[in-house]
Formats: sequence, C-alpha cells, structure tokens
Amino acid sequence: MSEIKKAGRILRAPENFVDSALAHEITTKGWNEERRGFLRKSFLAASAALAGGSALAQSAAAAPDGDPNILNLPEHSRTLGKPVASNPYGMPSKYESNLLRRESPGLTRVSAASVAFTPLQGLFGIITPSGLHFERHHQGWHDIDPAKHRLMINGLVKNPKVYTMDDLMRLPSVSRMHFIECGANTAMEWGNVAVPTVQYSHGMLSCSEFTGVPLSVLLDDCGFDRKQARVVLAEGSDGSAMTRTISIERALDDVLVAWGMNGEMLRPENGYPLRLVVPGVQGVSWVKWLRRIEVGDQPYATKDEAIHYIDAMPDGSYRQYTSIQECKSVITTPSGGQTLVGKGFYNITGLAWSGRGKIKRVDVSVDGGRSWRTARLETPVLSKCLTRFNIDWVWDGSPAILQSRAIDETGYVQPKINELRAVRGTKSIYHNNAIQSWKVAESGEVSNVQVY
Amino acid sequence: MSEIKKAGRILRAPENFVDSALAHEITTKGWNEERRGFLRKSFLAASAALAGGSALAQSAAAAPDGDPNILNLPEHSRTLGKPVASNPYGMPSKYESNLLRRESPGLTRVSAASVAFTPLQGLFGIITPSGLHFERHHQGWHDIDPAKHRLMINGLVKNPKVYTMDDLMRLPSVSRMHFIECGANTAMEWGNVAVPTVQYSHGMLSCSEFTGVPLSVLLDDCGFDRKQARVVLAEGSDGSAMTRTISIERALDDVLVAWGMNGEMLRPENGYPLRLVVPGVQGVSWVKWLRRIEVGDQPYATKDEAIHYIDAMPDGSYRQYTSIQECKSVITTPSGGQTLVGKGFYNITGLAWSGRGKIKRVDVSVDGGRSWRTARLETPVLSKCLTRFNIDWVWDGSPAILQSRAIDETGYVQPKINELRAVRGTKSIYHNNAIQSWKVAESGEVSNVQVY
Repeated sequence: MSEIKKAGRILRAPENFVDSALAHEITTKGWNEERRGFLRKSFLAASAALAGGSALAQSAAAAPDGDPNILNLPEHSRTLGKPVASNPYGMPSKYESNLLRRESPGLTRVSAASVAFTPLQGLFGIITPSGLHFERHHQGWHDIDPAKHRLMINGLVKNPKVYTMDDLMRLPSVSRMHFIECGANTAMEWGNVAVPTVQYSHGMLSCSEFTGVPLSVLLDDCGFDRKQARVVLAEGSDGSAMTRTISIERALDDVLVAWGMNGEMLRPENGYPLRLVVPGVQGVSWVKWLRRIEVGDQPYATKDEAIHYIDAMPDGSYRQYTSIQECKSVITTPSGGQTLVGKGFYNITGLAWSGRGKIKRVDVSVDGGRSWRTARLETPVLSKCLTRFNIDWVWDGSPAILQSRAIDETGYVQPKINELRAVRGTKSIYHNNAIQSWKVAESGEVSNVQVY
Repeated sequence: MSEIKKAGRILRAPENFVDSALAHEITTKGWNEERRGFLRKSFLAASAALAGGSALAQSAAAAPDGDPNILNLPEHSRTLGKPVASNPYGMPSKYESNLLRRESPGLTRVSAASVAFTPLQGLFGIITPSGLHFERHHQGWHDIDPAKHRLMINGLVKNPKVYTMDDLMRLPSVSRMHFIECGANTAMEWGNVAVPTVQYSHGMLSCSEFTGVPLSVLLDDCGFDRKQARVVLAEGSDGSAMTRTISIERALDDVLVAWGMNGEMLRPENGYPLRLVVPGVQGVSWVKWLRRIEVGDQPYATKDEAIHYIDAMPDGSYRQYTSIQECKSVITTPSGGQTLVGKGFYNITGLAWSGRGKIKRVDVSVDGGRSWRTARLETPVLSKCLTRFNIDWVWDGSPAILQSRAIDETGYVQPKINELRAVRGTKSIYHNNAIQSWKVAESGEVSNVQVY
C-alpha cells in the first residue's frame, strides 16, 4: 500500500478489509428491530422479542490487519449499483420501514377524523420529514386539484377577491421554519394515563420550512377595513369546513398563506395546495385546504372554537381561544419503549419549543428533577420553531428518571404537571405543556411515568 | 348567515360558495402543465404544447354573492376523505408528479456513474426535499444493511477502532444545515453551451439538515497523532471505493460523520447509513457509504483527486485539491424553460451560498448587469448553507436579462463568466461559480444566455 502511495496515485483504493474482516461479527438480527436497538426500539417493536447483547462491546476493538480478500467483500462493494434517478422521487431505505406515522387505534370512532402521530423517537434535528408529518383531520384528507382551487378574501374589505394558485404564487413570498403542534398534544397526560411512547405522547408535533405569501399582503391587496377589522376567519374546503378565528393583530404579524413545505408543495395530508401557517398557535388554526379568509369585527365562535379546543377549568367554566402553544420540551431519546443496553455513555436528545418566541435554555435532569444540567442547543435557534437539544449522560446502571425543562425568551419556565394541574385542574384535553418524565429501570427499559 | 353568527356559534360554516360559484371558471388544463404555468414550466414539460392564457386576469375579480348550492360543491367539500395514516409514509400530491430529479441523458456512458439533477425551478426555501436531493454516483447506489455496516478509523492513531452504527449513534451528536454542491455543477457553462433549465445548469445542488457525530470526536476517541497528522482519507464502501483527502484542520473543524438528513436517516442514494459531511467543500468529498477514515501525513492523491475533480488552467497545468465551493447564486424563478404570462408583478426568487461562510448580500439585475437592486434574504442565513432570496419585479413586457450576484461574509463577490475565464481559461469542468443570466423574451419565454 505504501508503494502505491509513494507513486502519488492510487488507482483503486486498496483497503477493503473493514467489511470483509468483520464478516464473522455481523449480527443476523434485522435492523428494524436491532437498529436503534439500544435506544430506539419503538413501542410496537418492543412487543416483539428482542435478543439482548451489546454490539458495542464486541465491536469497539482494534481493526484487524491482513490481506483483504476481495471475495469476502460485501456485494455492494464489488458490484455496479443502481443507476441515478432509478427512484426519480426517492424514498427511505427498506431498513427504515418500521419508522412510520401511526394512528392510535381506538382514539376516535372514524379514522378519517383521527390522528397519525409523528415518530419523534426515531428523528433527528428539527426538520420533520414531510412523509412523517403528523396528521389530524376532521373529515379526512383529499388530493385537491390546484388548478381548480381558489382562495377568497371577503368580509370587511373594500375589494373582495378570489385568487388562483398562480395568482398567489407570483406574489412576494417568504420562507420560515416553524413548529406546528396540535392543541391536544400530550392530552392523555392530564390524567394519570401514561401512553407508552413519545410518538403517542408528543407526536402531534412537527416542524417544517414553510413558504407562502404573508396574509398581510393579501389583506392589503383587498383593502381591509383598518378601523373595523378585529379578527379574520379562516375556512378550509374539506368536508368539515374547518373554521377558526384569528385576531387581526396576529393576522397582520407573521401569518402566512402557504403552499410550500420543506422545499416542495404541501403534502395532501397537510393541506395541499394551500394552508394557513399561524406561528406559535395550535395546529387547528393552521387551516388546511384553505379556501376563504373573512375579515370580521368580532370572534366567530365557530364549532371548533366553541365546542372543541376549549379548556375545561377547575371551576367548571371553559376557557376559549387559548391559542398559543406555551413553552414545552420533551426528551425523545431515551424515551418510553426504548431500552438501554448497559451502563455507559449516552447522548440524551430532545426537542424544545415555544409559541412565544425562541428557546433560551433547556435543562435536563436524570434524577427526577432534584438536580439539573443545561443542555447544548443545536443551531439554528429560531422563533416559534423546534430547537434540538443534546446532553451527555453516563448511566451507572441504577434506576433514573429523565426530564427536560425548557425556558423561552420571555423567561417562562415549563411547569411540572402538578403545577399545571393546580391552575388548570384535571379535566382538560388541550394545552398540556408539562414536564415529561421517563423512567429508566435497572433492566434498561424506559417507560412513561408521572413525577409530581 | 348573520343570524347564525349572532347566535354565537356556527355549527356548520355557512359559506361554501367559493368553489361552487367559480365552478364555471375552472380551467380544464392539467396542473402539471398549467401549475407554475406562467413560471414553473419545466424544460420537459415545455416540449409539450401549452395552451396560453392568463388565469390571473380572469380570476382576480370580486367574489360573487348568492346562495350556495351544496350540490355544486367540489367532491372534497362534501365527502369523507381518506383516513389518517392511509399513507403511513406520505408522498407528494399526484399533481406534482412532474417535479422529479432527472438524469441528463447521454451525460455519461453508464447511468450508474451519472447524475440526477434537483429540480430547483420548482422548489421553495432552502431545504431540499430528500426525495429530490441530487444524485451523483460513481458506481451506482445500494441500500446497505446498517446492522452490518462498520466504520474503521486507522492510520496515525494510537487505537484504531471499528464502530457499528449503534456505537456511533450513542455518541454526542450535532445537527446542522448545510448545502452540498458537486464540484462539476454548472460545468457546461464553461464553454458556450447553455443548458436549457436551472435543473440541468445548477441542479447538482441540495441543502439539508444533517445530524451526526463530529469527526473530531472520533479522531480523539482513537487518539490520533497530533504531531504527525496532516490529513485524513475518507473512503466509501461502494464499488468505486471513493476516496478523498481532507486536511486535518478541516477534519477537526466542522466535518461530521452523519447518519441523519432532514430529520430521518440518510436516503440510500445519499449514502445510507453513513456519509461524511464536509461543509463548504465540493460534494465528492462528502464520501457516501463511509466505511473508513485513515489519518495520514500527506495528501493521498487518489484517483478522484488526481485524475478527476482537478481544474484545467489556461497554462496547461492542473490545479488539485480545489475543494471549497466559492460564493455563488442563481435565480431559480423565472429561469430557463419557464414562460411569463404577461406584464405585471413577479417575485424573482433564487438561492445563494458560499463555502466560506454566510451570505452577506444578494443583488439582482433585470438589465443584464447595468443596474442592481439588493434582494431580501430569508431567514435563517446560516454558514455554508443555502440562503433564499426574493425581490419584487414589475415586468414591462420588453426583453430583459435577469442576473443575481452574491457577496459572502468574506467580502468576496461572485464573478462574471468572463472574469472567471480570464483567470481560469475555458477548459475547466469544475468549480464554475459565475453569475448566471436568464433572458426574458417579449413572448415571456425565459432562456439561458451568457452575458460577458
């Protein structure tokens, strides 16, 4: 090898012995169960038997020497692979086929009015792959022909208008990264029901780069009544005719009429070809398949803001229009349903977000909140966007309770569940932003617990 | 309607007349040709006949009044849609089926050693959808079993090691957004060959959020020789055994051994389960299907840095190791192959990037470089990452030449093609970062031209 190097040129890289020499060490377990084996096992996979054992201890040894035997090379190192554009629209590896958004069976009577949760336990960074963006439909989803789709703006405007998609897409556009969280995310935790995995406890949460025209541009274009206007009503074109009231101040601030998500057009399940983006506000207000904006002088109290998405308070009253998603965080790995395979170093990672701006700090506890260390925040840290945090942890093998606590730029501190219940009671469904606790057992198994 | 409103609750949103009243206006043209019709028509679609006409003029009228007739509602407004998780891994709308990465036929003899270009003309923001990430393979791609994959670190290290994927994924990880550009992007423009669309001129460019462990962590873990080490060699496990030399300074700076891309595992075409991320550096150094890192004391001059990816200079010499992708930008809309449908307002949008840091400013000209205006940069503006720019333009219907010129934080100004040729000659294939010109004809047709 050194001879070849001295010749100043290597016509074929001479070292192929990584794979060949290790061939005998290769586990025969499938990746879908084995991968993320120590940490990332999903709840569903957890129900399958899992043979234990640490690949780490075996493999962190020095590399063997010796002549490479080309016949021992894996097939992909000695064959011509697949051509470019053989998948003109690419898909994940077949070994990732277990990482899916999933419905929680029995959550609703009709699957068209249900939820599919994002598998947060298997994701990285802050961008949610569009194929795994959570779904919450009230009357199912459609793939709407954008050539036929229209957006009307009416109500307290001088010039009501109807826009085609082409009309909208030639207007000044902006692109911004924002999280979207359903107001009912983590709903089950209001009681003592602890759903088993972070996919089902926090998976009505996604984050994308959205592109669209500011709603303020359209309202200006239609000459809205600056004196009378107090709200807008956003209306979807699905069968549920989803309608939500949004204050005019917010509508003129950072709300987008969006067609783009993570670089391409919205996915049908996420409102293709047009949805509202209402940064920091619960997902139901991000009206999908958007067909109309009406400017009004009073809140509309529509079915989805009078009957649903209201907060049951301890005194028996209901709080309406609780739209902002308060500061919240969750550890995604290790999390419920995963198993640590022995003592040693782990990277604790998770997500933090606030409907009121940027995340300032995330603290992590491994002892149920008795002591806290500050986690590293990955860049970029953006307003009303997910922030990824990471922190080192050496597990000594004894039981542990993992928690994360986010603080946003307003100084607001994510509350404990008992602090939240003291104000809000236990009858709520919506707007639970309490600290999440994951218990690590001596066996390494991680489960959802409530710590008061 | 007002009666219902006064009752304080709307049990069913009463306004359905957007779609119904406009039914007669609906074009029968398909979206794949019609959508982005005025601007986004791809080169391939352009070869199909396109019936003209502006939907804008027809539709920007006041909304009609009158009783909604529910029978005239589109189907998606009066039926139960598809259930959640009916696509557990979602895909784009069927109306987007024309937006694909595409091979340039005849570019190479074998499609397994070719390029599939990203359709920049149809994308938004800075995140490239992973399904449309460009492909450049030297011996095709494989879907490698991550349970069997290994990474070896050897050479000038105290403790050579072999890592499994699980070993790597429990280490401290970071997430960062970076562009990746092939060193041969825009290669054809060195001559006077003007390829017709931005997909083929600039489409070896993508941008993702990557997650992985810093290479510096692994080098430390193996105890690399701080006195002797000058470079590392990165080696892929595909049939081409791609090998690239990277300086130790860079290796210790911001290079990642990455498994995550846009929130999920890398796609097979992009190196699943492991690739190198070398921010700011040409794509060939981002070795895919990474199996080995060797620490050395001199550049390796491998086949892909001695024969390929070298710059032919005017004096007949070849420049080696030109790795950094210099500051560059391109207008993606309007761009070659698209057609403007009449005078009026347009949003000019494009991308800027620099291998040396952040974009400071992007100027746009509509008169072939005689005058310039500064574009808006979308946030976030990140180092060694794509930056999206937008600027308003009212087209008066006369011929125009659109250009963008990026300036990075070092003060470097993207050059004109003749400025670049004065230094580099015309025989190069790689590292063309010249200003791109798009000509708008009176007909509205946009084409690729060179302006000196």
